[in-house]
Amino acid sequence: MSAEGVRAALERLVRDVPDFPEPGIVFKDITPLLADHKAFSQVVEALAEMGRDESGAGVVDKVVGMEARGFILAAPVALALGAGFVPVRKAGKLPGETHAVSYALEYGEATLELHRDAVAPGERVLLVDDVLATGGTVAATRQLVEACGGVVVGVAVLMELGFLPGRETVGDLPLHALMTI
Amino acid sequence: MSAEGVRAALERLVRDVPDFPEPGIVFKDITPLLADHKAFSQVVEALAEMGRDESGAGVVDKVVGMEARGFILAAPVALALGAGFVPVRKAGKLPGETHAVSYALEYGEATLELHRDAVAPGERVLLVDDVLATGGTVAATRQLVEACGGVVVGVAVLMELGFLPGRETVGDLPLHALMTI
Repeated sequence: MSAEGVRAALERLVRDVPDFPEPGIVFKDITPLLADHKAFSQVVEALAEMGRDESGAGVVDKVVGMEARGFILAAPVALALGAGFVPVRKAGKLPGETHAVSYALEYGEATLELHRDAVAPGERVLLVDDVLATGGTVAATRQLVEACGGVVVGVAVLMELGFLPGRETVGDLPLHALMTI
Repeated sequence: MSAEGVRAALERLVRDVPDFPEPGIVFKDITPLLADHKAFSQVVEALAEMGRDESGAGVVDKVVGMEARGFILAAPVALALGAGFVPVRKAGKLPGETHAVSYALEYGEATLELHRDAVAPGERVLLVDDVLATGGTVAATRQLVEACGGVVVGVAVLMELGFLPGRETVGDLPLHALMTI
C-alpha cells in the first residue's frame, strides 16, 4: 500500500467531531479507522516502517505507546517489529517504581509515568501515538525514556496537527506522520 | 506453542504487586509480559484462538477491548483475526453518540461507553481483556454490544481470578482464560 493509499484511508475513516471534549476543539475520531480491519492493518504497517532498516528488519528494542489511544497503535507496531511493548501511563496507574513527568496538554495538564525497569540503558525506542498536537506528550515521554537510559530513535504518529507547534517541540527527533492536517 | 508453554510464560512474566491500587489488593502487573516480544506474541495468538473455527479462520467481525489495558491485547487480537477493533471506554472519552452502562468494580464503580455505530446488528463480537475479576466489566460490555444489536460469541482473558465470581457473572458466554489463579 502506498503512502497515498494510507492517506486516502485516513481521510475517509477519521471523522471530525466538533466541540469535543471542549467548545472550539475539533476532535479527530479514529474509531472508524480501527473498526476497518484492512485500513487498521495498513496504518500499523505504515507506522512500523519507521522502526525498520533498509532491508525491512526491525531495528528497535521497545515500542512505547502513550495511554490510552496510543496503546491501540503501539502494541501492534511492537509486534510487527519484533520489539517489546511498553506503556506510558497517566499518574497512579503503573504499580511498580516509576519515573514521572508533568506537562501541559492541548487542553489541561497531565502527569505521565514509566516503569523504571521498562527500558534498559542503551535500548533503542520508537514512540507511537495517534495524534501529535502540541508535542507535550512526546516530549514528556522522551524525558521518561531517557531517564531510564534509553535512546528514542523516532516518533511515529497517525496524524499531525500542523497548526500546532508539535514538530518544533519534538525538535531533533525523526518524526513520521502518516497525515498532516 | 502449547497451552502449557503460554502458562509458563505468564507465570514467569506477570508480577505480583501487593497493596496496589489499595491495601489488601495484589495487583497483577502484565507489563513484563508485554515487554517480552515472544511471550506477548504467543499470548495474542492464544487469545485469538477463541475467534477461530476448526480450520483456523477468523469467525468474528469485531474484537472489543476495554480501556485501558484491554486495548493492548484486543487490538493485536483483532488484527490477527481479520476483524475490526472496537474500544469500550470510560465515561466521557468517546466523542460520538454512545450507549452507556454503569457497574460495580472490584474496587469502586465505573461507567463504560460504546459508540452506537461501532457494532452493526448481527455482527459477531469477541471480548478481550487482561484480567477477569468480578466480571462486572465483561457483563457491562456485553450489555453495550447487545444494545447495538451485536452478538457476543465469547470472552478471552489473559488471567482469571478464580477466587472472585467472574465466571458466574459471565454466565452462558464461552470464556477462555489463559491462566486461572
